[in-house]
Amino acid sequence: MAPTDDLPDNWGRWGEDDESGTLNLITDAVRARAASEVRTGRAVSLAMPVRPAPIVMGPFAPDTREVSPVQQLMALTPHAAQASADVMLVENHAVWTHLDALSHQALDGLVYPGRPFADSVTPAGVTHGSTTAFAAGVITRGVLLDLAADGPLPGGPVTGGDLDAAEERQGVTLEPGDALVLRGGRTLTENPPVPGVSVDGVRWMHRRGVSLYTGDIEDARPPLNPGVPAPLHKIALVRLGMPLIDAANVEELAAVCAELSRYSFLLAIAPPRILGMTGIPVNPLAIF
Amino acid sequence: MAPTDDLPDNWGRWGEDDESGTLNLITDAVRARAASEVRTGRAVSLAMPVRPAPIVMGPFAPDTREVSPVQQLMALTPHAAQASADVMLVENHAVWTHLDALSHQALDGLVYPGRPFADSVTPAGVTHGSTTAFAAGVITRGVLLDLAADGPLPGGPVTGGDLDAAEERQGVTLEPGDALVLRGGRTLTENPPVPGVSVDGVRWMHRRGVSLYTGDIEDARPPLNPGVPAPLHKIALVRLGMPLIDAANVEELAAVCAELSRYSFLLAIAPPRILGMTGIPVNPLAIF
Amino acid sequence: MAPTDDLPDNWGRWGEDDESGTLNLITDAVRARAASEVRTGRAVSLAMPVRPAPIVMGPFAPDTREVSPVQQLMALTPHAAQASADVMLVENHAVWTHLDALSHQALDGLVYPGRPFADSVTPAGVTHGSTTAFAAGVITRGVLLDLAADGPLPGGPVTGGDLDAAEERQGVTLEPGDALVLRGGRTLTENPPVPGVSVDGVRWMHRRGVSLYTGDIEDARPPLNPGVPAPLHKIALVRLGMPLIDAANVEELAAVCAELSRYSFLLAIAPPRILGMTGIPVNPLAIF
Amino acid sequence: MAPTDDLPDNWGRWGEDDESGTLNLITDAVRARAASEVRTGRAVSLAMPVRPAPIVMGPFAPDTREVSPVQQLMALTPHAAQASADVMLVENHAVWTHLDALSHQALDGLVYPGRPFADSVTPAGVTHGSTTAFAAGVITRGVLLDLAADGPLPGGPVTGGDLDAAEERQGVTLEPGDALVLRGGRTLTENPPVPGVSVDGVRWMHRRGVSLYTGDIEDARPPLNPGVPAPLHKIALVRLGMPLIDAANVEELAAVCAELSRYSFLLAIAPPRILGMTGIPVNPLAIF
Repeated sequence: MAPTDDLPDNWGRWGEDDESGTLNLITDAVRARAASEVRTGRAVSLAMPVRPAPIVMGPFAPDTREVSPVQQLMALTPHAAQASADVMLVENHAVWTHLDALSHQALDGLVYPGRPFADSVTPAGVTHGSTTAFAAGVITRGVLLDLAADGPLPGGPVTGGDLDAAEERQGVTLEPGDALVLRGGRTLTENPPVPGVSVDGVRWMHRRGVSLYTGDIEDARPPLNPGVPAPLHKIALVRLGMPLIDAANVEELAAVCAELSRYSFLLAIAPPRILGMTGIPVNPLAIF
Repeated sequence: MAPTDDLPDNWGRWGEDDESGTLNLITDAVRARAASEVRTGRAVSLAMPVRPAPIVMGPFAPDTREVSPVQQLMALTPHAAQASADVMLVENHAVWTHLDALSHQALDGLVYPGRPFADSVTPAGVTHGSTTAFAAGVITRGVLLDLAADGPLPGGPVTGGDLDAAEERQGVTLEPGDALVLRGGRTLTENPPVPGVSVDGVRWMHRRGVSLYTGDIEDARPPLNPGVPAPLHKIALVRLGMPLIDAANVEELAAVCAELSRYSFLLAIAPPRILGMTGIPVNPLAIF
Repeated sequence: MAPTDDLPDNWGRWGEDDESGTLNLITDAVRARAASEVRTGRAVSLAMPVRPAPIVMGPFAPDTREVSPVQQLMALTPHAAQASADVMLVENHAVWTHLDALSHQALDGLVYPGRPFADSVTPAGVTHGSTTAFAAGVITRGVLLDLAADGPLPGGPVTGGDLDAAEERQGVTLEPGDALVLRGGRTLTENPPVPGVSVDGVRWMHRRGVSLYTGDIEDARPPLNPGVPAPLHKIALVRLGMPLIDAANVEELAAVCAELSRYSFLLAIAPPRILGMTGIPVNPLAIF
Repeated sequence: MAPTDDLPDNWGRWGEDDESGTLNLITDAVRARAASEVRTGRAVSLAMPVRPAPIVMGPFAPDTREVSPVQQLMALTPHAAQASADVMLVENHAVWTHLDALSHQALDGLVYPGRPFADSVTPAGVTHGSTTAFAAGVITRGVLLDLAADGPLPGGPVTGGDLDAAEERQGVTLEPGDALVLRGGRTLTENPPVPGVSVDGVRWMHRRGVSLYTGDIEDARPPLNPGVPAPLHKIALVRLGMPLIDAANVEELAAVCAELSRYSFLLAIAPPRILGMTGIPVNPLAIF
């Protein structure tokens, strides 16, 4: 069932039916290490703030409006109730901070850990590898490797060597089960070239036992190697079963880490407890 | 500007424009106390799991379907991309675990701290007292008072005396800035009578400096006193500016607290970072 | 129950519970007159074409997009089915061609024919004066009065005298039960001043027995008389119970009428048969 | 490009880029014939009435609700405006009266008239064979063939012979360009067997020049011949390019035809003028 090429994978490592992927690496010892990072309770959000686009009807609406992953419609509530309510239309995979479920992506028609994509993702929802795996939250130690301490990264690959160097520079070591947070100092919607994690970088994560990846670096634009599947969204997510938090906002985190001279923290990830989705907005909190 | 009756309020306490209400009570010392609760990193979700209702088209759909606060529509994605995505329609104030923004309710036409409801809640969104106040997350110490340790509560009022007794029984003391979590062992949709926090209970919270309220006890059905505004949704939320997490799921929390003989924990609240809403789904995590 | 000022109204004319308003004027004789207009089957649409705004997720969506009253989401369908489907989110009262239900507007807290607005329009839908009245379609004779044959109208009032003059110029006479279609040659979203039907014009419609109003002229901007309710949306709709089709597109109609030297036709109005709405998109067809 | 088996098709008949299919058969002579049917202006709707499912938030909503193709959300409107508005979420291809666009279905990866499905139906909308072709309305002569005059049809095929017999019994003859309306006296959601048009019936339509098909008979359940594509949704729609109105309501039409002893009428089809959809709700009117 597992692929036979030389790219890394975890298919079968935790069983044929596993839906947790590298979250399996978060053991009691990992959580205790995370707990030991908490000293003051200071928390930093890794989420981009999103202003919803209001759905308002009437003759003089503007011709264009900001695109937002969230549209808000204020609901009529009974006058006597003196209450307000709203409904929101949410595009999970727009460019904002969200957690990709394992079956968000497939490769050669298969999702992690080797099941048919068409059986896992159906018109009625996701039957395998959905947000159900994250619904009770994820707690682990997070480590920021700030590759942009001396300025924004240019385009091109982020390699394992870059990550080794950052660990050494910052005096921090990623342990198995930790979440990796990378900072490149770029925004995803900038004009290319935009840097990206390379296959070598993903091998590094695999070797080191990263449980979850996030940051402001994703797959490069233009692709680093068009002949190879996207390192994060195809190799890490599909082959390693490593959940990804896309489009994180790590500017404030980097400033606080620099201020405290500490690059590790408890990372609390608590998406709304909605089952069966392909992805879900999330507000990861780094707690110091 | 502040009401002149003898019900408690915080209008003006933190300024005329304040949008944080009792979250102002969460000081560095409170957060440090919360931090000191973290030892193992074990986490418990206080959210009800929600299964979305799929929007599926076709001739043989069932005549009825479960009502869910979330509807999911699987989006067509390009075949070559081998990716899946979905859109969700979310009813923030349905019966599921969500955080009420301060302007979700008004009393006598005013929202906290005494501003006109009609100016704060508009067809284009909430301009004052919205989820913007919570968007970066809330970290504080949480304390569970389990009123149902000996069995589900009957209907009727939960008073300050009940809370004092629970503290004594459990050997825990709520400190200013803590979040209060109550358990009555009942579900909100049970047949009445369903118990509710009384005005006396809200006075207790005010006196003790509760920063945020949650649990499985809300305003009673039938109302405890039809001549008095709803204690939680009108007095605590509107007059005290105390955020409420409705419809929490505290069964697992109570079991873990009993197992550990500890009723306090770090409470991490991290709703999606969406601004300007009347409420937002949330997955509160109690971290031990 | 009926108002006591000197503005016209039909409250009570067809009973206290009436939901059809001036559609009651469409008798068998009116329909037969409409039928007699049909000779060739040539049809002209009076609807503005609407291009939906697609809901597409992905990293490189544009920063802004056209605002549309309709958003379209392509649904995932099973691969084997080789079928496509979509869901649309429709804003009924945006600036496009739609039919206003009678309870879309209220005046002094009342809707046609004198019922409380708050009882008729509820959070769960419209209980009185909704699209239910139009759901089986409306067939009557339509008459175009082209006030812009010599160029677009300036801002300001359209009076009964203007309508008399147009009838005489065109050699057509509006009969009781006919639908009136006005053309001013302006678009609703142009910069003010934009012309509007005056109270005098509405009195003319009342006197002549107009059953339904449409065209490219609505209530003026700026208002003709700020001290008087909007002639079409408050006096015609609420007091006369006259359905309005907002934002019609009458350019092609005017060209065909001029070509044929005929300003009357069968008007077929067939909105989707959806009950209980405040308004509904419609594609009125003028059939010659 | 055209298929080489012996099933009928119109691929190439009106060009490689045609989007109108059999609507091309509606000539001026056809419309004049339709016009000659109009005598009294009496109109009958062929649409099922739909009651929307309200989206209402609050603690005591029912556990289940009726499934509806339309969900309605009443929008907050400014109190001073005394106006109401709503938004509707519409599932075009649910079981209600809607018009299928030509690219709603594909066969062997191709849509009418032989173009790749994946190029025509994209995540951003339909680029070929969409509702754009119907947006200005369709006017033609309609002919009802009532196969259930003596009682509901059993399951099984509707053949060309059945249609010939109905014409003779009713004294009506379908002419090229007419729309065919069939009545079987069954509802689509009944337990199987439910009757369906056979390939032979579709050949009859092709031979006779039917421009559009509707009625209460669709493709049979169970399928008449699992080895052959669905006669209406794959052969008529995809190969002939014949638009289908699914789930019509022909009970009142049949009663009126019997009362008048006339089985032909002007058929006015006027869906909302929304471009680029896979299908669209419609309220077809038979005008006598």
